[in-house]
Amino acid sequence: MAVKMKMKTAVMTDLQKVEIQEREVPTPKSDEVLVKVEYVGICGSDLHYYESGRIGDFIVETPFVLGHEAGGTVVEVGENVKHLKVGDRVALEPGKTCGKCEFCKQGKYNLCKDVVFFATPPVDGVFQEYVAHEADLCFKLPENVSTMEGALIEPLAVGMHAANQGGAHLGQTAVVTGAGCIGLVTLLSLKAMGVSNVIVVDIMEKRLQKALELGATAVINGKEEDTVARIMELTGGRGFDLGIETAGSQITASQLIKGANKGATIVFVGYSASGEMTLPIGMALDKELTFKTVFRYRNIYPMAIDAVASGKINIKDIVTDYFELDDIQNALDSCVKNKADIVKGVIKVC
Amino acid sequence: MAVKMKMKTAVMTDLQKVEIQEREVPTPKSDEVLVKVEYVGICGSDLHYYESGRIGDFIVETPFVLGHEAGGTVVEVGENVKHLKVGDRVALEPGKTCGKCEFCKQGKYNLCKDVVFFATPPVDGVFQEYVAHEADLCFKLPENVSTMEGALIEPLAVGMHAANQGGAHLGQTAVVTGAGCIGLVTLLSLKAMGVSNVIVVDIMEKRLQKALELGATAVINGKEEDTVARIMELTGGRGFDLGIETAGSQITASQLIKGANKGATIVFVGYSASGEMTLPIGMALDKELTFKTVFRYRNIYPMAIDAVASGKINIKDIVTDYFELDDIQNALDSCVKNKADIVKGVIKVC
Amino acid sequence: MAVKMKMKTAVMTDLQKVEIQEREVPTPKSDEVLVKVEYVGICGSDLHYYESGRIGDFIVETPFVLGHEAGGTVVEVGENVKHLKVGDRVALEPGKTCGKCEFCKQGKYNLCKDVVFFATPPVDGVFQEYVAHEADLCFKLPENVSTMEGALIEPLAVGMHAANQGGAHLGQTAVVTGAGCIGLVTLLSLKAMGVSNVIVVDIMEKRLQKALELGATAVINGKEEDTVARIMELTGGRGFDLGIETAGSQITASQLIKGANKGATIVFVGYSASGEMTLPIGMALDKELTFKTVFRYRNIYPMAIDAVASGKINIKDIVTDYFELDDIQNALDSCVKNKADIVKGVIKVC
Amino acid sequence: MAVKMKMKTAVMTDLQKVEIQEREVPTPKSDEVLVKVEYVGICGSDLHYYESGRIGDFIVETPFVLGHEAGGTVVEVGENVKHLKVGDRVALEPGKTCGKCEFCKQGKYNLCKDVVFFATPPVDGVFQEYVAHEADLCFKLPENVSTMEGALIEPLAVGMHAANQGGAHLGQTAVVTGAGCIGLVTLLSLKAMGVSNVIVVDIMEKRLQKALELGATAVINGKEEDTVARIMELTGGRGFDLGIETAGSQITASQLIKGANKGATIVFVGYSASGEMTLPIGMALDKELTFKTVFRYRNIYPMAIDAVASGKINIKDIVTDYFELDDIQNALDSCVKNKADIVKGVIKVC
Repeated sequence: MAVKMKMKTAVMTDLQKVEIQEREVPTPKSDEVLVKVEYVGICGSDLHYYESGRIGDFIVETPFVLGHEAGGTVVEVGENVKHLKVGDRVALEPGKTCGKCEFCKQGKYNLCKDVVFFATPPVDGVFQEYVAHEADLCFKLPENVSTMEGALIEPLAVGMHAANQGGAHLGQTAVVTGAGCIGLVTLLSLKAMGVSNVIVVDIMEKRLQKALELGATAVINGKEEDTVARIMELTGGRGFDLGIETAGSQITASQLIKGANKGATIVFVGYSASGEMTLPIGMALDKELTFKTVFRYRNIYPMAIDAVASGKINIKDIVTDYFELDDIQNALDSCVKNKADIVKGVIKVC
Repeated sequence: MAVKMKMKTAVMTDLQKVEIQEREVPTPKSDEVLVKVEYVGICGSDLHYYESGRIGDFIVETPFVLGHEAGGTVVEVGENVKHLKVGDRVALEPGKTCGKCEFCKQGKYNLCKDVVFFATPPVDGVFQEYVAHEADLCFKLPENVSTMEGALIEPLAVGMHAANQGGAHLGQTAVVTGAGCIGLVTLLSLKAMGVSNVIVVDIMEKRLQKALELGATAVINGKEEDTVARIMELTGGRGFDLGIETAGSQITASQLIKGANKGATIVFVGYSASGEMTLPIGMALDKELTFKTVFRYRNIYPMAIDAVASGKINIKDIVTDYFELDDIQNALDSCVKNKADIVKGVIKVC
Repeated sequence: MAVKMKMKTAVMTDLQKVEIQEREVPTPKSDEVLVKVEYVGICGSDLHYYESGRIGDFIVETPFVLGHEAGGTVVEVGENVKHLKVGDRVALEPGKTCGKCEFCKQGKYNLCKDVVFFATPPVDGVFQEYVAHEADLCFKLPENVSTMEGALIEPLAVGMHAANQGGAHLGQTAVVTGAGCIGLVTLLSLKAMGVSNVIVVDIMEKRLQKALELGATAVINGKEEDTVARIMELTGGRGFDLGIETAGSQITASQLIKGANKGATIVFVGYSASGEMTLPIGMALDKELTFKTVFRYRNIYPMAIDAVASGKINIKDIVTDYFELDDIQNALDSCVKNKADIVKGVIKVC
Repeated sequence: MAVKMKMKTAVMTDLQKVEIQEREVPTPKSDEVLVKVEYVGICGSDLHYYESGRIGDFIVETPFVLGHEAGGTVVEVGENVKHLKVGDRVALEPGKTCGKCEFCKQGKYNLCKDVVFFATPPVDGVFQEYVAHEADLCFKLPENVSTMEGALIEPLAVGMHAANQGGAHLGQTAVVTGAGCIGLVTLLSLKAMGVSNVIVVDIMEKRLQKALELGATAVINGKEEDTVARIMELTGGRGFDLGIETAGSQITASQLIKGANKGATIVFVGYSASGEMTLPIGMALDKELTFKTVFRYRNIYPMAIDAVASGKINIKDIVTDYFELDDIQNALDSCVKNKADIVKGVIKVC
């Protein structure tokens, strides 16, 4: 196997500092494959760690490698790996779980307390040229799905898990608050699951335009319109069946409670800055609403890849900006500074 | 209200005999509307009653009116009706239920023992120019859905309920056995619910062609191919996730059990002639399969109309033959004789 | 039928004023029965209306009759009623629904917008000697269930619906916050559904004693103990699987979010005074919690009566105080004043 | 660690021949514990292998060790094991799964194709004094649960999974066909899950008596009574909500279809000799029945142990005969010959 022995790695060395360093190419274990990383998406969590060094209890200790949305090509295969071979193009599910705890046994492996997840401190991520990863977490891409699309399966999985948690189905009217990356992949997921009528709410016009391009039935600019009144107007006074909150704001969360039909479900995806929200729970009881929440995703990659491969979801279209790995400092700085414009950035690794 | 007082009614007077008679236009009660019937689909059950005078315990006593798949326009409105007005075009859900029994209370109203259902003896059907029907069972069609499509909401509802009962969702591989009207509307329903990969099995080539036209990923001619081997080949040896049996044959039912992946669900829709089936239940246990069954449908009309209105389902395309009401004897005779060719016939009433 | 023509009715004539008046005994319609009311429970909502004249948008206009938890004996039967006869003892489900709206059709009739519910303004309740009620809402009691227990089926149904909404099942550990009437019936419901381990939280010692008598595995006095720490201690650091919030307090609601195991479900039953709650939603996302809410109940009476008849639930034991109908002013005043002592009062009508 | 180095092992050397041999005590791996086996239940599958050398495609090659229902005490702990220590008494879940396939990831690990299961050829069982077993499959027993009861958690898990698959819950009426070991543990599971009304059907009077002792509401002797007529009589003509078929007979399976209420669920647990059953599927469609099947169980041990520990299930009472390990040939022969009398035998190992 001819693999070069050194690889470029984008190492975060301090707050808002990242530099390209040389590291050794890892050697895959018997149940792992070595993947040549080709594309890695830039996630909001990468930017949080980059900008402020922490998310909740997870604190970056430098040197640290960011990046967890990866697609690439298998270049070496561990001896016990059966379903992959050299040359297979794959999407990488970033979380390795124990397989034995109550959550893993019940199929809710995203709740495993021993998860090892790319770019969640202290585990390094994949802004680098190669990574050795558990073969079962590397999902082979069909011929018509590129490794760039493979990288985007990760954020898509979040939106799809949100839609799944909400029980999205044909015939519903849905409202998505927040039209950032996660709001948009949620929109795409809802459409792929048969929800024909999806209303998207945001306060940035560029994002709302993107939502319309991606298939939103209607958009509401929360700065310019009365969101609840407009939801009621668009639903003939009935309210929506399924609301998905990705903005992390108690304003939009409360609007969803007010705009919901009786018996509706609301899914919380976005984190608010303070961690707390003040909500009209009494109204939620009167309507007998259900609230679901989302922590990452589980058992979604095959479904998400199928949705892209079958053409149900055009995931490429959420990307607004591409960067080279060597340009990563600029990439991260740009994303931090231009949140309104850069809806989704992707690093082209090699 | 200017409604003509007499109307044409297609009355079954004997086995395989139907004639146009004059009857009085009915008067709607306070919670009913009077609908000018424009299109009525010809269902397999209509043909059974026409040909042999009975289905199971339901026995035709002539004179009897067939037909239960109707779309039309409201021409008169009962005094307590609020959600419809004269001129509204509607699809008619044919079963009136009690609203009070354990099944109605639990939302499984299709199991109501006191149901009154068009063209199920001794209740007359709607091969006639007008019908008075409970307003809550008349679903208003959006502008872009015709009353011909409205008539086809009824068979579509059966396929959609079957897909629903099977828990159809994005990412699955499904197999539908039988490509008659119900098999085809099931195919359409599965696609609308996000199932990208649908394999259809039949023994008539014309039906398989129709299935391909309507979006089947692959078709299997059970007379020429080993159905189970072909399912395994098409699924990479994995078997399918969801099987829907509409052929009413223990051969196809057994093939589904053999072609299923572990943990799969199989939905029985088709009735076998004898009412009995001999099945490899031991294999079903080894795979821990679930079997669901379908009796008509419930709570499907809004979802089915939405699927047609949003363009997810092109229901018009299942129709192969149109007939005039005056030509109904010929219509029914043709459908009985040319089962292989007439996949779906529709009566244009006025 | 020998029914006396006048009956005593407890009429609320002003805030905190109720007097016994004579009214005519009603005549049952064809689908109704006339019930001689024997016991009526006093509910927290009765006391709210009595004390302050309103709950949310529902405002009392006097004269008004309170009371909606009734058990009694059928004394007259409408001509279309089949399942009941004179002499049958019944529990009365207080809400009459339309049977035709989307919620009724889907079996979620508790969300019907046209519901007519005893003692919810402007509909009179049943603190009176006779009531004519829809026969389908009168559930026949088995021989070993008294009409006093029949009256208590109504509050029990709330607790049982809460447990149901939470997916209560064998093997779980549950926490109930609030040990008033609804907290206690929730405890009883959880036990009947197979939940062996139920921890009850309140701040009134008398209520906690009652909870222990009724089968709580452990109790926590939230004034004297750190509720979250104690939940963690009692669950071996694991947290609970199912939390049911009946206290209507954001303090206890937040404690439940903190004391929950990952993947747990929390059911909101109690209304807070302000209608709003400030909650640690970020923690809920990290644990991927589900929140359900409860508005009254649906399809619960048969199950609740079965639980009492089979001895799974000893509902009598929640009653702490009995009053005569003639003594109703004192009864309501006592309940308002002695909330800590009178866990559940019942009016004996005749 | 002082463990004796040789142990007694009951080795099947030929059809219907088993002898005690000495084997080396195994050494636990890092994630395993060594368990001193104290009790092992004798299962119908052990008797099948013993008597005829095969079950379906699983064929015994001697020497082979039977037995998979084990309880014992931990005597040595692998270095990575955290939740167990020497002296802990445990119930052993017999199937080790891969943790990585689609089924394991989804929590349906009982469908894992790479499962290694005690006493399923070619994997040896546990009729022996010691066994090294994956620690995560050894469930610690509370103080009030004996290792004899621990051994019986395995068959109980089958009945509990069956009840679970059927959605057993408070308020239902259930019918269990077959009152052998699995029928009886199903009865116990149903009762523990809140089903108050359980009717048991068998043709052996001794088993029906046992069912009554264990809490059946009523029993039906299928040889002496018309089972369907009796079910209808016992349910007031309504039919049952949940049927569980453990007899492996198409006669009882058909009776369940006939005795079911509309919308009911039937769970298949028992294997018929031929693997096939001829069933009235047309009637199942008319009633819109659901059929579930059972292959072993998943995620049941904690729930089953809780049910025994909390006193909900008195599992000891299903045992009719005890044998010593040295007496195993006689034990197996007796069980084979006296199926009507020996409802459940247990081997006391040491």
